Amino acid sequence: MRHRLSPDHYATGVLTGNRLVLSQAITLIESRRPDDQVLAQQVLERILPKTGESIRIGITGVPGVGKSAFIESFGTYLTSLNHTLAVLTIDPTSQRSGGSLLGDKTRMEMLSMNPNAYIRPSPAGDSLGGVTHRTRETMLLCEAAGFDVILVETVGVGQSETVVHGMVDFFLLLMLAGAGDELQGMKRGIMELADALAITKADGDNQASAKRARVEYQNALHLFPPTGNGWFAPVLTCSAITGVGVNDIWQTIREHQEITTQNGYHLRRRQEQQLTWFRSLVRQRLEGQFYNQPNVRSQLAEIEEQVRAGTLLPTPAVEMLLSQSSDSL
Amino acid sequence: MRHRLSPDHYATGVLTGNRLVLSQAITLIESRRPDDQVLAQQVLERILPKTGESIRIGITGVPGVGKSAFIESFGTYLTSLNHTLAVLTIDPTSQRSGGSLLGDKTRMEMLSMNPNAYIRPSPAGDSLGGVTHRTRETMLLCEAAGFDVILVETVGVGQSETVVHGMVDFFLLLMLAGAGDELQGMKRGIMELADALAITKADGDNQASAKRARVEYQNALHLFPPTGNGWFAPVLTCSAITGVGVNDIWQTIREHQEITTQNGYHLRRRQEQQLTWFRSLVRQRLEGQFYNQPNVRSQLAEIEEQVRAGTLLPTPAVEMLLSQSSDSL
Repeated sequence: MRHRLSPDHYATGVLTGNRLVLSQAITLIESRRPDDQVLAQQVLERILPKTGESIRIGITGVPGVGKSAFIESFGTYLTSLNHTLAVLTIDPTSQRSGGSLLGDKTRMEMLSMNPNAYIRPSPAGDSLGGVTHRTRETMLLCEAAGFDVILVETVGVGQSETVVHGMVDFFLLLMLAGAGDELQGMKRGIMELADALAITKADGDNQASAKRARVEYQNALHLFPPTGNGWFAPVLTCSAITGVGVNDIWQTIREHQEITTQNGYHLRRRQEQQLTWFRSLVRQRLEGQFYNQPNVRSQLAEIEEQVRAGTLLPTPAVEMLLSQSSDSL
Repeated sequence: MRHRLSPDHYATGVLTGNRLVLSQAITLIESRRPDDQVLAQQVLERILPKTGESIRIGITGVPGVGKSAFIESFGTYLTSLNHTLAVLTIDPTSQRSGGSLLGDKTRMEMLSMNPNAYIRPSPAGDSLGGVTHRTRETMLLCEAAGFDVILVETVGVGQSETVVHGMVDFFLLLMLAGAGDELQGMKRGIMELADALAITKADGDNQASAKRARVEYQNALHLFPPTGNGWFAPVLTCSAITGVGVNDIWQTIREHQEITTQNGYHLRRRQEQQLTWFRSLVRQRLEGQFYNQPNVRSQLAEIEEQVRAGTLLPTPAVEMLLSQSSDSL
């Protein structure tokens, strides 16, 4: 049985940077118990005025691109500049439990022992929406705890990159040189979301191909529609082994922050993200409540099968399903 | 007061290719009157077995790219091969009424007089979801009326291209040579959705720049993740004035159809589209019913303003809004 603190105790602990209390507060946010959820909101309400001051960075890339090694190198560099960073990971593809924490800490060994870094994986949830909702709230807790850089890491497959893009100020896409096999797993449309591309593993024999890839991608990005915020996504190279290029990535993020703060895009992006988060939460609640009704649940599979096969049109299918609902729809 | 037929009369008229009845049936589908909607579903139910046999092609591009001229040229070419085609247009940016029909017919003058072509603009609706829903059902009516090629045209700005992509077999993106100003209005992510790019206005002095653009875009597309269906989006050039290249585009669409039919992707894409259509209809109904409640409506703006400003967190904001709802959420 977990020990619970009062909202004020959680808030004070978080605001004074107490790691243990921060971890407990995140666990509270992740809990599905109704009383925990009430308590979690009371904590968040108290820390809210102290949030929003970090640089929020999303990092994605397909498995094998070297995300952990990059974050280890990048994070260590940031702490050498006296930044403090929190690393949150979203991996909807794995069904992780308590053991994951150890797993993530092991794969970022140096960073996990660094007093200015804090690593916290999001537990796998039933729905991506639920996971990312908790990650957003965790991000706020970390900001209140004083971390001035938040990295949100996700696997570059599926839908999670899009939602991570929707919660950060800067979206970094890690790529391997030699467009080919590694692109197979990547979702289409992700490249156009990136605020910067970084070609990883640009060391040893890979340096020449990384440079070629950099030029190729840079040319390709010039053919994309502009972002509309005065920023043109650059392509960089870096090596987690030699550390070369890692500082340029940070410099790029700083420049982006400066430009978008000055032209108002930074604030607008955050405001839109808040609103989108709110609307998707409403949708999750409405859909959750609807699809969880026993009558709806028992009919859904058969109706969807007919819709998929094209023997039942969506409009009458919706009527059939809604007629099962106990609500007055 | 419009005259209404029986469901069987509508269905028979559509199935025998009676243009007048087809137009009346589409008007019926577009009507918001509850009795019309019931009648429309009865008609659709009757024609459903005769649908699905056309090639469904989505065409998009920013204003000025020459969509109308292209469709006029492409459509005339298709009718010369004894194809019959229906052109449906979605333009969520304009508030069009009855006059739009004339407008669209005027801008495709030759095609509108061609007995093997049928042009029908979708009326602007309150919501893009509603417009595209009716366009999907209109597409089914046109298939039942015997058209073997359906073109769905949309403006390459906003959200409509994504939904058009979700209702067609082949998604064609029209582009101008000289990436620059014309990209400004294009939504990011659209290029990666395209099954082919066509550089328009490749005639006269533009020919050289069109060829250069073709090579550049082709190189860029090679750096995109593959579609996963064995198809690599080609870049073509064409001229609506000289007609050069228009046949290549049709050839490309035919090849795509053949490859994806053989590898099963064609069927899978359509099945997924049906299911996505169904689920988005459920969502529209749930959200529509929720947001239309007077209590919810009166609170929404203020709650959203606080969420946007970051002074109210989404979770309590959702609770506040749901507590206004008369349903047992």
